[in-house]
Amino acid sequence: MPQTPSSTVSNHEIPASITGSPLYKLINPDSIAFFGASNDFGSMGTSQLASLLGLGFKGNIYPVHPKASSVLGLKAYQRVADLPETPDLAVLILPTRIVLDTVTQCGEKGIKHAIIVSGGFREVGAKGRDLEQALIQTAHRYGMRFLGPNCLGVANPHHKLNTTFLPYRGAAGYLGMVSQSGSFITQMFDYLSRVGMGFSTAISVGNEADIDLVDGLKYLSACPHTKVISLYVETIRNPKDFLEVASAVTLNKPIIAYYVGGSESGKQASLSHTGALSGPDRIYDGVFRQSGIIRAWSIEEMFDMGSVLGSVPAPRGNRVVIQTHSGGPGAVAADACDREGLKIPSMPDVVKKALSALVPHTGSIGNPVDITFSKDRLAYFSSIPSCLLDADHFDILFIYLLLPKHMFSRAMESLGVPEKQMAFETEKLINELVGKIEGLVQTYAKPVIGFSFHSPEAFFIKQLRARNIPVMQSPHRAARAVAALCRYHEGRAKRAKDKPFNTK
Amino acid sequence: MPQTPSSTVSNHEIPASITGSPLYKLINPDSIAFFGASNDFGSMGTSQLASLLGLGFKGNIYPVHPKASSVLGLKAYQRVADLPETPDLAVLILPTRIVLDTVTQCGEKGIKHAIIVSGGFREVGAKGRDLEQALIQTAHRYGMRFLGPNCLGVANPHHKLNTTFLPYRGAAGYLGMVSQSGSFITQMFDYLSRVGMGFSTAISVGNEADIDLVDGLKYLSACPHTKVISLYVETIRNPKDFLEVASAVTLNKPIIAYYVGGSESGKQASLSHTGALSGPDRIYDGVFRQSGIIRAWSIEEMFDMGSVLGSVPAPRGNRVVIQTHSGGPGAVAADACDREGLKIPSMPDVVKKALSALVPHTGSIGNPVDITFSKDRLAYFSSIPSCLLDADHFDILFIYLLLPKHMFSRAMESLGVPEKQMAFETEKLINELVGKIEGLVQTYAKPVIGFSFHSPEAFFIKQLRARNIPVMQSPHRAARAVAALCRYHEGRAKRAKDKPFNTK
Repeated sequence: MPQTPSSTVSNHEIPASITGSPLYKLINPDSIAFFGASNDFGSMGTSQLASLLGLGFKGNIYPVHPKASSVLGLKAYQRVADLPETPDLAVLILPTRIVLDTVTQCGEKGIKHAIIVSGGFREVGAKGRDLEQALIQTAHRYGMRFLGPNCLGVANPHHKLNTTFLPYRGAAGYLGMVSQSGSFITQMFDYLSRVGMGFSTAISVGNEADIDLVDGLKYLSACPHTKVISLYVETIRNPKDFLEVASAVTLNKPIIAYYVGGSESGKQASLSHTGALSGPDRIYDGVFRQSGIIRAWSIEEMFDMGSVLGSVPAPRGNRVVIQTHSGGPGAVAADACDREGLKIPSMPDVVKKALSALVPHTGSIGNPVDITFSKDRLAYFSSIPSCLLDADHFDILFIYLLLPKHMFSRAMESLGVPEKQMAFETEKLINELVGKIEGLVQTYAKPVIGFSFHSPEAFFIKQLRARNIPVMQSPHRAARAVAALCRYHEGRAKRAKDKPFNTK
Repeated sequence: MPQTPSSTVSNHEIPASITGSPLYKLINPDSIAFFGASNDFGSMGTSQLASLLGLGFKGNIYPVHPKASSVLGLKAYQRVADLPETPDLAVLILPTRIVLDTVTQCGEKGIKHAIIVSGGFREVGAKGRDLEQALIQTAHRYGMRFLGPNCLGVANPHHKLNTTFLPYRGAAGYLGMVSQSGSFITQMFDYLSRVGMGFSTAISVGNEADIDLVDGLKYLSACPHTKVISLYVETIRNPKDFLEVASAVTLNKPIIAYYVGGSESGKQASLSHTGALSGPDRIYDGVFRQSGIIRAWSIEEMFDMGSVLGSVPAPRGNRVVIQTHSGGPGAVAADACDREGLKIPSMPDVVKKALSALVPHTGSIGNPVDITFSKDRLAYFSSIPSCLLDADHFDILFIYLLLPKHMFSRAMESLGVPEKQMAFETEKLINELVGKIEGLVQTYAKPVIGFSFHSPEAFFIKQLRARNIPVMQSPHRAARAVAALCRYHEGRAKRAKDKPFNTK
């Protein structure tokens, strides 16, 4: 019986297509043969096995090593033929010259899935291309499906699986990724933890000699842990399949793609990276638009968009109201929203009337609403946003966040509150404020997006995110991510011909 | 004798113009009368006095309060007339209705400089405009120069001065700022500390009823601590003066401006913020271009540019070589540089030859140079960048940085190194690597720019920055900041008609 991707999800909730995916056993294996790890921490294979052990993989691991009798504390085997069972997956981090033989031996053993990390194939030129062809033929002779070569494999924290060379130390998340660069998986582990996200499953496809981007897309579409799919693209090798699959997926889940080959230098760099032949920007733009994919223009933007698209309800339109207590950040947010095509309607009189009782005379009850300095700090997180979310004139609330911590601490210090209690009181207050906002989101079911220059690791910001209120690191990043949110839902509504999206 | 802005700078090093500036005594006062602070921490004035005390201002502070006999532990005075001396500066955080009277009393006392924080003037409409006119007349009757109203004053950490309501806890830095939003000063204190920068002096000009943006520009141009000037602009009230002064300043120091009024929503928001009448983007573009100012498109970009422009030597041209050990980040950097108009020349044969001995066969000796996984980690920070910096074909080195810490730790752990020693050994190794790069920068006098997805607060990144090697938070941000660096030096060279800047 196939193992589920997570113990919290029962079998019948998994769509049939996920277990039929060539990636299913590769991403959710019960047992793994591991080639290329030793007890030398200078080697990449050893790092990769250490990552797998570090995340606490629950299945059997069989290191295969020509000499060592144990590797990182696990019993090692000289030959794959010696293994006591047929593992679900083989992971190969071996010198190029012995990859083919090892794949043959794995095939003889009956192994049906492999991750081939080793490089030295198509990406190095003609000789490599021939070798890659031989690899495909050998694998297919044994009915084996494989990822790579020249990849880093997969991270599926829901299954405690991480075959890459960097440790995965964050939480399991809702962001799925298929990447033509292993770095944009591994080297994002810590980044995503810092901004409060984690991968549901991330797949490094490398040269895509067998399993490709489209297979990854299909898998993540069916994956119950994945709410948003991100793609790092240097080339689309099979545009017809890609278009067809992506068009179907985006009716179900958002896809955000970052494409790198659009400039001459990007194209050259991609070519030497994965042997990918990139195309002009406008062709990729067309493919993305036609299939309902949102295009990101940088890596961090892709993750910003993923964070917003994966955590807020669908907006009914693109009319934004901005709440701030500082004129500058409010003006910047308005300017940024406008430039991104979002609407900043002027404040209707009925809302102005309600606000005038809440905002001091030095403030402004336009859009942005600028509270300026107010003694009633609670109002900023309750009565004022409630007023704005209640208005039919707005679809989305942008709220500027300045951690009131320093000022609270100073006030408490002056009252002689002991330091330990101060921290406790501050956290209590922050939790109260965050709880208020969370309640409003639940009541009004409209997107509430924070923006702040605070560290994404600040307690206040983390607490908000934990309640599905994304906080972007600047007004610009917020505006761009929200524009992507609106583009996605507008496009989806149009294509699905369901409830209309208001852009008036 | 005027006090110098810092004890480390002797008087004769200060250009004559700085002491002649109406801002000089305002930014470097020996004594301050403080209106609006009490012992109630819910009030803004109290927070502002607490900030001043918190930074450890060395001069005399005289709180003026109608009732309290002491304020935050300082002897308080009922009336400004009672003060034992005539202070250099008055800071007013008072209800709008008593501002005019208080200014009159300060004038009677002979005070020549004021910061008027209070709002409720031009930014609230016709009545406020009249009040602002009266304020100007009153001040000038006494020969008093003032900042504001509707501002937050100044932060000059070199003089331990911070009149704003948020504490300044970072180091004194080299970035000067004049801002039409107080928030973009105060609320950047922590942000700038996190990214390893600090203000030299930051000036919130508010409504600019008297002292304006141009005065701020002149002051910072003469300020010996300021290497780069940043501007947050909602409007330029006096374009002729601005053009003339900025054009002279940019021959001496870079100016980076972020302008917010270019969109309709930005314009509306600015109007209600500081009563500023903004103009169309293209007019501001023209003003900036003509005066040699670099335009930033977001707040974080302004600071990214400041960090690069203030810490690296002038490049001789815009030809970039990229060094990476991960194909993806290398390709993204190449693509981003290309889109920003930087050149990524192909690798010349002579350099290829030298590199081929240093780069493994799975890597690439093009541009980007991709080392891939290499056993010789030291080479990444010594022989390889040395090879690239030595080549006449390149003006700037981009280097991708992945903290090797996790892998070192894992290796040491496997060897049974105790945790405490591990931390020590890791720091030692990092310092060694950073020292190597620093040596290369000194040898070749070319800009070396790091890019990384690590936290800007990671030890490795902080150590690099401390040695004037800026590390940008993504390849895109690096490319945009470096494009600004090149634009500035290219423009300056053209206008100064000195050594040419190579863009071939």
